[in-house]
Amino acid sequence: MTQLEYARQGILTDEMRNIVENEKIDKERLLDDIAHGHTIIAKSSLHKCMPAGIGKDLKIKVNANIGTSNYCRNLDLELQKCKAAVKYGSDTIMDLSTGGDIDMVRGEIIKNSPVPVGTVPIYQAIVKQPDVALITEKDFLDSIFRHIEDGVDFITVHCGIKKDFIPLLSSRIMGVVSRGGSFLVKWMLYHHKENPLYTHYDEILSAAKAYDVVLSLGDGLRPGCLADATDKAQLAELGILGELASRAYEKSVQVMIEGPGHVPLDQIKKNIELQKQACHGAPFYVLGPLVTDIAPGYDHIAGAIGGALAGYYGADFLCYLTPTEHLGLPGITHVIEGVIASKIAAHAADIARGIPGVRDRDDRMAKARSELDWDTMFSLAMNREKAEALKQESGATGADVCSMCGDLCSAKINKETRAGYKTI
Amino acid sequence: MTQLEYARQGILTDEMRNIVENEKIDKERLLDDIAHGHTIIAKSSLHKCMPAGIGKDLKIKVNANIGTSNYCRNLDLELQKCKAAVKYGSDTIMDLSTGGDIDMVRGEIIKNSPVPVGTVPIYQAIVKQPDVALITEKDFLDSIFRHIEDGVDFITVHCGIKKDFIPLLSSRIMGVVSRGGSFLVKWMLYHHKENPLYTHYDEILSAAKAYDVVLSLGDGLRPGCLADATDKAQLAELGILGELASRAYEKSVQVMIEGPGHVPLDQIKKNIELQKQACHGAPFYVLGPLVTDIAPGYDHIAGAIGGALAGYYGADFLCYLTPTEHLGLPGITHVIEGVIASKIAAHAADIARGIPGVRDRDDRMAKARSELDWDTMFSLAMNREKAEALKQESGATGADVCSMCGDLCSAKINKETRAGYKTI
Repeated sequence: MTQLEYARQGILTDEMRNIVENEKIDKERLLDDIAHGHTIIAKSSLHKCMPAGIGKDLKIKVNANIGTSNYCRNLDLELQKCKAAVKYGSDTIMDLSTGGDIDMVRGEIIKNSPVPVGTVPIYQAIVKQPDVALITEKDFLDSIFRHIEDGVDFITVHCGIKKDFIPLLSSRIMGVVSRGGSFLVKWMLYHHKENPLYTHYDEILSAAKAYDVVLSLGDGLRPGCLADATDKAQLAELGILGELASRAYEKSVQVMIEGPGHVPLDQIKKNIELQKQACHGAPFYVLGPLVTDIAPGYDHIAGAIGGALAGYYGADFLCYLTPTEHLGLPGITHVIEGVIASKIAAHAADIARGIPGVRDRDDRMAKARSELDWDTMFSLAMNREKAEALKQESGATGADVCSMCGDLCSAKINKETRAGYKTI
Repeated sequence: MTQLEYARQGILTDEMRNIVENEKIDKERLLDDIAHGHTIIAKSSLHKCMPAGIGKDLKIKVNANIGTSNYCRNLDLELQKCKAAVKYGSDTIMDLSTGGDIDMVRGEIIKNSPVPVGTVPIYQAIVKQPDVALITEKDFLDSIFRHIEDGVDFITVHCGIKKDFIPLLSSRIMGVVSRGGSFLVKWMLYHHKENPLYTHYDEILSAAKAYDVVLSLGDGLRPGCLADATDKAQLAELGILGELASRAYEKSVQVMIEGPGHVPLDQIKKNIELQKQACHGAPFYVLGPLVTDIAPGYDHIAGAIGGALAGYYGADFLCYLTPTEHLGLPGITHVIEGVIASKIAAHAADIARGIPGVRDRDDRMAKARSELDWDTMFSLAMNREKAEALKQESGATGADVCSMCGDLCSAKINKETRAGYKTI
C-alpha cells in the first residue's frame, strides 16, 4: 500500500509518525493532508532513508541536484556533494547523472544518501541512445522502470508535454529549457507521435505504485527566461499535469507538480495560485524561480528571492540553484552555497507563513547577539564554519565585539543602558 | 537653491537633465516628483560627482557602506572598496569610518568617488569623545556641520528618536541596533535631556540647505531582529520622521527616510505602506530588510530577499549587506558580493514594477543563451569575471556547451528542433 492509501484508511505509518514528531504537526491533520494529496511522503519502500514530508502545513523542503555529466564524472565527488548537501540541510537529493557509469553512480548515491533520492530516468535513456531516430518508446519506459526498481524515492516524468503544445513554443525566446522536455519534443517532431510518457502514463503509475515512488510531474515546458514566463505553452502543460494528478490519485499514487523556472517577481503569486487550482492542491516543487536572467554566478541569490516568495505563497518544495547554474556543474562549495541560499528562502517563507516554532531559532540568535554571546551565535548560524571564518578573517580576534562597529557596538552600548529604559 | 526649490519653480537643472537622459523619464514627471519630495537628487553643491536620483518612477538605487573601524584602518583598502563597489553598480557610497584619521579618509573618499558619498557624522563625534558625560550637544552638531562643509552629499541624522520612546524599548530582544541611535539613547538617559538632533533640527536643516545636502532621516529605533519588527518604538519614531520630513519641505531641504532592518517577509509590504503614508511619499531607504536572523555569512542573501520585496512594494533605495554583516568589516570581495546581491534585488523589483526598458538586458541574455553565444552571455552578466571563471573551472572548456548538461543541452537540442515547432 502507498502512504496515500494508508492515509485514506486513517492508518498512521512509521513514516508519518516520523514527520509528526519532527514537525510538531497534528497527526489527524497530516493524515488528512496526505489523503487529499496535499502532502506527499517521499520514500520508496526499497530505500532505507529518512522520509521527507512535502506539502501543506509542513515546513518547506529543499532539494539539491548533484550528478555527473560527460565533462565531469567522478563518483567520489558526487558522494561528497551528497554529504555536504545533507549536512547543510538539504531534505532530498536528486541524482541527475548523465556521464560515466550512470547505474553505478545512482546505486552508490542511493546507498549512501540518508535522505530520499530523486532522478530523471529518461536522461539515462537519452544518453544510452542519443539518436532520435533509434530511441524507442520502450527505451524511455525501461529507464523509468529501472530507476524505480533501483530504489529511487521520486522521479521526474515529463508526462504533460503534448504534441499539440509544440506550436505554442514558436513565440518563445528560449524554447524548451528542460533537458528531458527538449528531447521529447525532438522525438515527437521526428516520429510524429504523441509523447510516450503521456500515452503510457498508466504503466508508469503502476510501476510507481509498486514501491510507493512519488511521481514528480515535470514541467517540460517551463519558461527558461522572464520573457517566456506564464505563457500559453506553460499553462497548457499545467492543465494536463492537473489531469495527470487526478489519474494518479485514482491509482493511489503520490504526486507532486514541478514548476518554473524563470518568473518575474510580480508573476510568482499568480503562478502558485494557478498551480494549486489546476492540480487540486498537489505539492508544488519549484526550480527557483529566478527573478532575473542576468545573474549567472549568482543564480542561487536570484533563485532565493523567487523561492522565498514562492514559498510564502504556497510552494512546498524548493529545488536549489548553485552559483554555477547556467555555467557548469557545481563543486562542493557551490553545493553548500546553493543549499544555504535555498534554506534561507524556505526558512524566511516558513516564518512568514507562521509555521509554529520556526522563528524560535531566530529569536535565540537575536538574544545571543544582544548579549554578544559569540559561541551561541555561531552554534545557531546556518553555516557555522563560514560565520566563524568570516569573523576571524575580518580582525578583532579575541575582542568581545567584531570589527564591523568595533567599540562603537550597539550591543555593547545597550548592555550599559538597557536597565535604564524605564527610568526616563 | 536646492534641487527641490528649482523643481518647484519648474527649472530643469543639469543634475535633473542627467537623470532624464540616464533613466528615460519624462522631464515634467521628474520635476513633479522632486517638487513633491517623492524623489531626491543626492549631490552636494561642493562635490563633483554623478548625481543620484532616488525616488518615484526611477530605477531603485543601491548604496554600499565602506569605512574603517578601530580594528581595521587602511585608507588604501577603503579606496579600493569604493572603486569595486562603483564598478559593480553601486549608485552611492557611504563612508562609515570610525577608526584612524576619519577626516582624512572621508576627504579621500569624497575626492575619489565618482558617485555621491553619504556619512553618519555623529559616529565621528562619538569616537572623538566616547564619554557620555563629557560629549555635548555642540559636539554632535559640529560633526554634522563639518561633514556638510567637507562636501558630503547625504547624511544620516537620527533626529526622530525622542526621549519618550525609550521606555517602549523594554519589550525588545535587541534594544537599539543603530550605532548612532544606541549612543543617543545612552546620552538622553545620562543627561535626562531630549535628543539634541531633534531639538536642533532647524540648525541641521539650515546647514544642509546651504549646500543642498540630502538629509537621510535615520531610523535609530529600527528593529534588529524579526521579533522586534514593526513594534511601537519603530512606529513612534516613524511618525516623528514624517513630521521632520514636512519641516524639511518647508525649508526646501531634500529628505529621504531610512527603514528597517530585520523584518519578516510578510510584514515588508505593511512597512513600506506605513512609511509612504507617514512620510508623505518621501523616498524610502531600507537596510535589507533581512528576512531571517540566522544567516550570518549570508546576510547579503537574506537582505536581497527582503530588498527585492521592499523595492517591489515601493522602497527606492537599498543599502547593501555583505556576507560579513554582523561579523566584521567587509573585504573587497565581500563588497562586490554585497553590491551584486543588492543589484539583483533592485533589478528584479524594477522589472516587477514595470520600469520601461529594464528587462531588455534579460531578454538579450535569454537570446544569447538560446544561441549558446557565450561572449554575449558574459558581456551581459552582472559580474562578467565571476561568470567566466565559474564556467572555466567547471570544465567543458572550448565546448559550445557547459559542463552542467554537457551534450544533453536543451539549447543545443532546441537549435535542431526550433524550425519544426509549427510543422507538427
